Amino acid sequence: MGIVALPSFPVVLVTVDENVMTAAAFHFYSFDPPHVMVGIRPQALTYQLILKKHEFGINIPTTEQLDIVQTCGAISGREENKFQKTGLTPNKGRVIDSVIIEECPVSLECRVVHEVQFEGSHRWFIGEVVAAQVDEQYSRDQALMFWMRQYREVGKVLLEVEKRK
Amino acid sequence: MGIVALPSFPVVLVTVDENVMTAAAFHFYSFDPPHVMVGIRPQALTYQLILKKHEFGINIPTTEQLDIVQTCGAISGREENKFQKTGLTPNKGRVIDSVIIEECPVSLECRVVHEVQFEGSHRWFIGEVVAAQVDEQYSRDQALMFWMRQYREVGKVLLEVEKRK
Repeated sequence: MGIVALPSFPVVLVTVDENVMTAAAFHFYSFDPPHVMVGIRPQALTYQLILKKHEFGINIPTTEQLDIVQTCGAISGREENKFQKTGLTPNKGRVIDSVIIEECPVSLECRVVHEVQFEGSHRWFIGEVVAAQVDEQYSRDQALMFWMRQYREVGKVLLEVEKRK
Repeated sequence: MGIVALPSFPVVLVTVDENVMTAAAFHFYSFDPPHVMVGIRPQALTYQLILKKHEFGINIPTTEQLDIVQTCGAISGREENKFQKTGLTPNKGRVIDSVIIEECPVSLECRVVHEVQFEGSHRWFIGEVVAAQVDEQYSRDQALMFWMRQYREVGKVLLEVEKRK
């Protein structure tokens, strides 16, 4: 009800242990220190893996990786190794034990600090960002968005707000 | 750390009681029944009002309302009545006691069911969507996005995924 009318959210590839899945249920949670959160369906392999590892990687793909993102969203790591299937390279995290993705321009390594205590179709985990890698050439214009069956580009900038002094 | 590299999130106008504020800290939380969540800085008037009213309205503005959105994000309802300042019309909600905004094409009326028990720069409230109004002419292409000082349009659709049977 109404939720189908929401615009679009960033798509991320969530890595835990040696598995990867696609998620649009992702947001920042808090600044300073930085925390993000991700919502996972409890039937997903990733949910079990987060409970086991207490950590996750957030890897931001680009529009050029749309095919890969779709594949990582369509099949379960229980059935197939998605790194082998897609050709993505699982790199060792700098801080976390789970892998992050070499081909993604942004990777955030996160340690779970809280699981939101309200049940729904998704269970949300808050993670403290304990390491971050961002390609120098990366621009947010390259990111991929998704909501309600529509993959989108990031939109054009309409206005850049002045930095607060 | 890394959080500045995130793409863009929907901007919403959050109404509680008779006040309105701009927020990009907003996401869905759960499908069926629909829940959304919103993150509010504890120093904001809206935070106090949510604690008092246990409800909030999520009003989705369009790119044409960018000036209004900026105004509602720049000043506090403690100093000025933002409805008077912007000319927005506060309508009575159908279910909630707080107002919703006539000029926004989408309004979700939400009852707070949970406050996330992890402190940060923002405090997040989960709301059950108890009523929704969506203009028939509304398209998600009209929505306004924001992150890290950049207001953006919603991006072009790259791919429309088939409905699962």
